[in-house]
Amino acid sequence: MDYYPRPSHADWTYLQKYGIKASSGGGRSSARETIGRVAASAIAEKYLKSAFGIEIVAFVSAVGNVRMEPMEDYEDAQDKGAWLEKWHKWWSYLNGVQRKDVDANEIRCPDPVVAEKMKQRILKAKEDQNSIGGVVQCVIRNVPTGLGEPCFDKLEAKLAHAMLSIPATKAFEIGSGMAGTQIPGNVHNDSFVQNDGRMRTETNFSGGIQGGISNGEDIYFKVAFKSVATIGQEQETAKYTGAAGVLAAKGRHDPCVLPRAAPIVESMAALVIMDMVLQQEARKGAASHLQKSDIPPVLTGKLEGAM
Amino acid sequence: MDYYPRPSHADWTYLQKYGIKASSGGGRSSARETIGRVAASAIAEKYLKSAFGIEIVAFVSAVGNVRMEPMEDYEDAQDKGAWLEKWHKWWSYLNGVQRKDVDANEIRCPDPVVAEKMKQRILKAKEDQNSIGGVVQCVIRNVPTGLGEPCFDKLEAKLAHAMLSIPATKAFEIGSGMAGTQIPGNVHNDSFVQNDGRMRTETNFSGGIQGGISNGEDIYFKVAFKSVATIGQEQETAKYTGAAGVLAAKGRHDPCVLPRAAPIVESMAALVIMDMVLQQEARKGAASHLQKSDIPPVLTGKLEGAM
Amino acid sequence: MDYYPRPSHADWTYLQKYGIKASSGGGRSSARETIGRVAASAIAEKYLKSAFGIEIVAFVSAVGNVRMEPMEDYEDAQDKGAWLEKWHKWWSYLNGVQRKDVDANEIRCPDPVVAEKMKQRILKAKEDQNSIGGVVQCVIRNVPTGLGEPCFDKLEAKLAHAMLSIPATKAFEIGSGMAGTQIPGNVHNDSFVQNDGRMRTETNFSGGIQGGISNGEDIYFKVAFKSVATIGQEQETAKYTGAAGVLAAKGRHDPCVLPRAAPIVESMAALVIMDMVLQQEARKGAASHLQKSDIPPVLTGKLEGAM
Amino acid sequence: MDYYPRPSHADWTYLQKYGIKASSGGGRSSARETIGRVAASAIAEKYLKSAFGIEIVAFVSAVGNVRMEPMEDYEDAQDKGAWLEKWHKWWSYLNGVQRKDVDANEIRCPDPVVAEKMKQRILKAKEDQNSIGGVVQCVIRNVPTGLGEPCFDKLEAKLAHAMLSIPATKAFEIGSGMAGTQIPGNVHNDSFVQNDGRMRTETNFSGGIQGGISNGEDIYFKVAFKSVATIGQEQETAKYTGAAGVLAAKGRHDPCVLPRAAPIVESMAALVIMDMVLQQEARKGAASHLQKSDIPPVLTGKLEGAM
Repeated sequence: MDYYPRPSHADWTYLQKYGIKASSGGGRSSARETIGRVAASAIAEKYLKSAFGIEIVAFVSAVGNVRMEPMEDYEDAQDKGAWLEKWHKWWSYLNGVQRKDVDANEIRCPDPVVAEKMKQRILKAKEDQNSIGGVVQCVIRNVPTGLGEPCFDKLEAKLAHAMLSIPATKAFEIGSGMAGTQIPGNVHNDSFVQNDGRMRTETNFSGGIQGGISNGEDIYFKVAFKSVATIGQEQETAKYTGAAGVLAAKGRHDPCVLPRAAPIVESMAALVIMDMVLQQEARKGAASHLQKSDIPPVLTGKLEGAM
Repeated sequence: MDYYPRPSHADWTYLQKYGIKASSGGGRSSARETIGRVAASAIAEKYLKSAFGIEIVAFVSAVGNVRMEPMEDYEDAQDKGAWLEKWHKWWSYLNGVQRKDVDANEIRCPDPVVAEKMKQRILKAKEDQNSIGGVVQCVIRNVPTGLGEPCFDKLEAKLAHAMLSIPATKAFEIGSGMAGTQIPGNVHNDSFVQNDGRMRTETNFSGGIQGGISNGEDIYFKVAFKSVATIGQEQETAKYTGAAGVLAAKGRHDPCVLPRAAPIVESMAALVIMDMVLQQEARKGAASHLQKSDIPPVLTGKLEGAM
Repeated sequence: MDYYPRPSHADWTYLQKYGIKASSGGGRSSARETIGRVAASAIAEKYLKSAFGIEIVAFVSAVGNVRMEPMEDYEDAQDKGAWLEKWHKWWSYLNGVQRKDVDANEIRCPDPVVAEKMKQRILKAKEDQNSIGGVVQCVIRNVPTGLGEPCFDKLEAKLAHAMLSIPATKAFEIGSGMAGTQIPGNVHNDSFVQNDGRMRTETNFSGGIQGGISNGEDIYFKVAFKSVATIGQEQETAKYTGAAGVLAAKGRHDPCVLPRAAPIVESMAALVIMDMVLQQEARKGAASHLQKSDIPPVLTGKLEGAM
Repeated sequence: MDYYPRPSHADWTYLQKYGIKASSGGGRSSARETIGRVAASAIAEKYLKSAFGIEIVAFVSAVGNVRMEPMEDYEDAQDKGAWLEKWHKWWSYLNGVQRKDVDANEIRCPDPVVAEKMKQRILKAKEDQNSIGGVVQCVIRNVPTGLGEPCFDKLEAKLAHAMLSIPATKAFEIGSGMAGTQIPGNVHNDSFVQNDGRMRTETNFSGGIQGGISNGEDIYFKVAFKSVATIGQEQETAKYTGAAGVLAAKGRHDPCVLPRAAPIVESMAALVIMDMVLQQEARKGAASHLQKSDIPPVLTGKLEGAM
């Protein structure tokens, strides 16, 4: 019998919302639901790769406090040059990381040394009949400029929506993310530089998006996943009736979802980029039928003066 | 003349997207655009307060490394009890903070001592012809249970979308957020307890949302704002033509947007909650016309057995 | 081999749109696609019946020139009183017609005498290796007042959209429809009359919708279906290559789709009403949480004065 | 004082829906609302003309029983050849009619002889303190092939939605419309013929749309407008209180809206076509980035065999 709404699961809220509940597991609230997202994204990714050479790589960058990414706060850094160097190394890493490296181990962390530490951390959680969370990093390379809408549907807003729709997520950070709140403007600004006939930025704290629109640099973001709610330990918690009780999960359950979360993050990234490609192609396709003379000089004149 | 796409502004991406650009400032990319959001939300907030007693308070919790919220990582904490105590204090603070305290100073930080430190940090940025970012915390109290959709439109996903659509935002964290990646399941799980005839949770790492659906606890989240891109210092950056140059902003500009960001965060929160209320009322209203006998026992039987 | 785009089918336009075509039949353009609509509507109809007592009856009212409904134009009518009497009889018929009468014969025409004539008309078409079209009438009874949105999503606009999305449809008429263009205002206006404590209209040329919003009277409309495009006769028509040729359909095909169209019309009607119920319940549910004192007197005062 | 819900107006339904009503006229229910549609469409029409040479002409084709279009039912026609000839003449007329001819008289009927009869019919209605309805025909020329979606958003479904969202409309007919229900398949089918290197149809009963998708032929449809509800004659009708009474409209009101309806029909047609262009350009633009080798042979092989 199913006496307990499991703590930090959807059992109780689902019941509150619908007045009914699924007969087992979490029903529609189970992350099994994401299978449809992954299936759809396989087509989107294939298109994006073929049409634009877009590559999407998502990987586990943290499990508990075992982390890959630069973590030092700018204002805490003694050596600002060394601090910046770490970010340049990170951007370079993201630019080069390959999915085959991600899939080379069961943790889906492309750095084998860190992956081993993560594995130990997860095994420790398992041993404790406990669970642990972590972070998935995702990089999207070769995105054309111009994707994303300027107001409500900024590209980072669509990505944030997509990522927080994945079960167990707690945070989304684009580019410099939370760390960017401390980096002063003169360091955080990504200066423009002409490179191989193409406008580039020298740094990439923006994470490939400016004003909600892709600028052609690598788009990268991180997604936080909480520790799994189902644990083997006994938990004091109320029954549906309100009466106090003790719940202990039985059966098979993961101590950490991170390795299985990376493909879902990648999938949702592909679906968002695909949507934004379609939206921008509508605009570009429609504009392609116009003559230059159709566009009022007031919209192009000043710019040409500037250029 | 307007020779430069300003670094980390929307000038260049906007031009890439549309082939044209606004004649001055950022045009549609300017945060002035948010005035319409704030105006609309005034009606939404009034409704939410009147209908459900919902209160939304957003405030500046960090400017650079001057911070109000608990920041210590769980795994770094020597005294786990003291660590948890800080979170309980923070939940209590969020439960009590009032907008009049927020509006009591020009920083929009409700703690006058911290506000003064933030002010000094901002003045330092101004003196340096530089800029600084920070964090807006937002709490939504008295939200009815059942808001938010179970799959793509989870309540936190809608909030993340809304918050990342505000200019200059870089991150969104719901509940325990990024910190939640380190807190093990046995601590992070919010146990249920019956209280005054109402199901409550003893902790609130979930941030008032479970399985994408509100559980009646305080919803709280934080939003990161980067340092302002417009600075008085000279910046080496390319012109629209690609030629290298030096840009220095003239005229009036803010060294920190945080005090002006808090009302926008509050506004977007109100609009999201209003949308989700309407969506849930559609379902509840439709269901209210059914007889109990219309609902197949398969959907209620097991539950009744459990309860 | 498939050399010919079939005349008045989707073969050629589908190819123009997508650059590819289905391997047989009409693929996604086949009316087989409507099976999903009918399945979904079974749930909607059940809800609408249970919650509001809504009844939806669709039936074949015309095959070729064999017709049930009043057809005489107002301006042609010698006896205006007799003309109006026919409409009253028609409204009364629509108010009483039952699905069991519709399903009593294979034509799905509830008048057995007319049904027999229709059957003969269809058999004639079959004999001629030709085809014939007709009309489906639909009545929706016991619709609550207030469904439909005042501007773009008027209830009749949503119904028209739904009906013209059914394959082979050519026209939609709500209430008096095309005939209403000739009926002068003093006759066409549906005067109000209090009846059993409820506001009713004495006539129903409006078809149960005024200003895009349901008024509680029977909603009725008709949908025109063209003659089936697939016929056994030889047709001179170009091949995909552009070369002239002669096409003759082989295999099994219907000379008239009307009997099978009625359930699809009924289904789409149910789905539209269900959508509009949800939309209106959102508004009513949200309003139900307000106190009367929340509503500014400017919005109610004048009205109360009038009443 | 405002004691009466005007018959066949939105006064009563609006009050039922919202619980409040506009202080005068019809508020949001007034056709004055369409000004925004007409303004927006001016941009859409300019684009459609410039990009594709699309021309949209809407005109008054009937007032009461004064009509321009072919009206004889197929099955009533003695001479089927003469009947078909009338349709060919009508298609030719629609293909050539110009807006300057429409705007040449105050009725907006491009045939000056018929326009004069319509004028007399309207003056008669005015003299009688009565009103009269009519029909607006609309033709859209030079529409590219491929617009419209195959299932729910068929091009005729979008047009029907748009047209029935205009106040006072009662019917929408695409191509042969209601008349098409009687025309047998061998006549109604539009045979293909290669013409100037382009696939055309010999007849156009389809009205330029097949399977929901434009085929490059002229799109034409008609929209029925009922007689104006506001009339000078006294009408027996109930007050808001339910009490019987007599209402007589005061002030200025039109005996016929048709001349003013034509531009609104044209506007909504432009907005629909513009929307469908954007939707199709998204698909075409996205496909333009693919190599031929990206498309599986299964999708093109059979077709190439056929061609």
